[in-house]
Amino acid sequence: MRYLTSKLSQQIDDELMSVAGAFSLDQLMELAGLACAQTLATVYRKDVYPRVLVCCGPGNQGGDGLVAARHLGMFGYNPIIYMPKPGSKDIYQRLQKQCENMYIPIIPPSNDLEDLRKALQHTDVILDAIFGFSFKPPIRAPFDAVIPILNESRLPIVSVDIPSGWDVEKGNVHGIGLRPSALISLTAPKQGVSDFVGRHFIGGRFVPKSLDEKFELHLPQYPGFDQIVELVSGTNKTSS
Amino acid sequence: MRYLTSKLSQQIDDELMSVAGAFSLDQLMELAGLACAQTLATVYRKDVYPRVLVCCGPGNQGGDGLVAARHLGMFGYNPIIYMPKPGSKDIYQRLQKQCENMYIPIIPPSNDLEDLRKALQHTDVILDAIFGFSFKPPIRAPFDAVIPILNESRLPIVSVDIPSGWDVEKGNVHGIGLRPSALISLTAPKQGVSDFVGRHFIGGRFVPKSLDEKFELHLPQYPGFDQIVELVSGTNKTSS
Repeated sequence: MRYLTSKLSQQIDDELMSVAGAFSLDQLMELAGLACAQTLATVYRKDVYPRVLVCCGPGNQGGDGLVAARHLGMFGYNPIIYMPKPGSKDIYQRLQKQCENMYIPIIPPSNDLEDLRKALQHTDVILDAIFGFSFKPPIRAPFDAVIPILNESRLPIVSVDIPSGWDVEKGNVHGIGLRPSALISLTAPKQGVSDFVGRHFIGGRFVPKSLDEKFELHLPQYPGFDQIVELVSGTNKTSS
Repeated sequence: MRYLTSKLSQQIDDELMSVAGAFSLDQLMELAGLACAQTLATVYRKDVYPRVLVCCGPGNQGGDGLVAARHLGMFGYNPIIYMPKPGSKDIYQRLQKQCENMYIPIIPPSNDLEDLRKALQHTDVILDAIFGFSFKPPIRAPFDAVIPILNESRLPIVSVDIPSGWDVEKGNVHGIGLRPSALISLTAPKQGVSDFVGRHFIGGRFVPKSLDEKFELHLPQYPGFDQIVELVSGTNKTSS
């Protein structure tokens, strides 16, 4: 399986949403967010970990987080959304509204970290949808303060695509990133997570055969009609 | 659980996609089509029934069928799309393109029923996505001829929402509709299928709690993180 650079990830995303790929952002985000929710539900059962703090960044990954929050609500979890810097795109507002219709609480945007600290006291597991494959350091406020607080909580963390604060290609080189126990890579894993040691899933079962071939992704086979597949160690890797 | 009229089904769909509901057609169609594919895969295993003829109508249900065809391709089935009257909306063209990128064959649109007859000789199971909850008789050409041919094939049929040719509220009163062995009701079942005797599933796990309450749908509880739930006989029904 190929581990992707930030640039190649962007190229694949662009191709999926091009005239040739024909996907809309709504479709991809829906399937990606569903895969995130299913990963969390696979690793952290709702009877033991019902309270999920869904941390959303201002970009597309925050959108994946909002979709995941809605599905987690559907699955019977009690998600709460922490989104200190809401994205401006129309789609985030629609996704947020969908969560509100599920009665999912949203912590009002603010730079006051007390809200976050308080929420963590009532959290069983964190879904990290803060930064995605287009993240470039440095970590901007308020997330530079948020990430250490999340780590210090010692709660289990499920990260989406790339643990927030990690270099997309080099990993947690500066030691300032989140320390997740589980990871869901979307489309294909990024180079920065090649040494990740927790449970690692792939999601985004929408990459057509033509694109898998073109980019030589060698994606793993998903079982049955699942939307996620767990990687087992010893998987072949090719950097690109 | 409430069994819906055609009018109420339309009202719920409109509400889901209103400013208040905030869903896009792309999102709903993606989850609906995924539920259709999962239903077929649950009832007809791909090692025994690998070849699926996906029959699509010209409306939104045809779009659900195209999404289902793509997911069936992802699941390892060999779907073929039969869509004699393609819809004109941009979304159908995008969904069709997504199927082409999965190398899913599409029978060229035509009124020549020989194409259909030939395809049925190489089919193990049919997915019926021809008419949905807004169907009003009479059955228009070429579907007036297509439906008897599908029935005569004696192949198992999975119908989406309402078996094609059935009255949405009264069922197969004229005996001219398809005779499916399994059914996937989207959002909530329609009045016309209240006496359906095959395996019956509900899909479309996107109805928010607020809307379930407003329309008193009393939707069944989905298991785990599945996108479909099978109904067992003896379920309470309320007509509306």
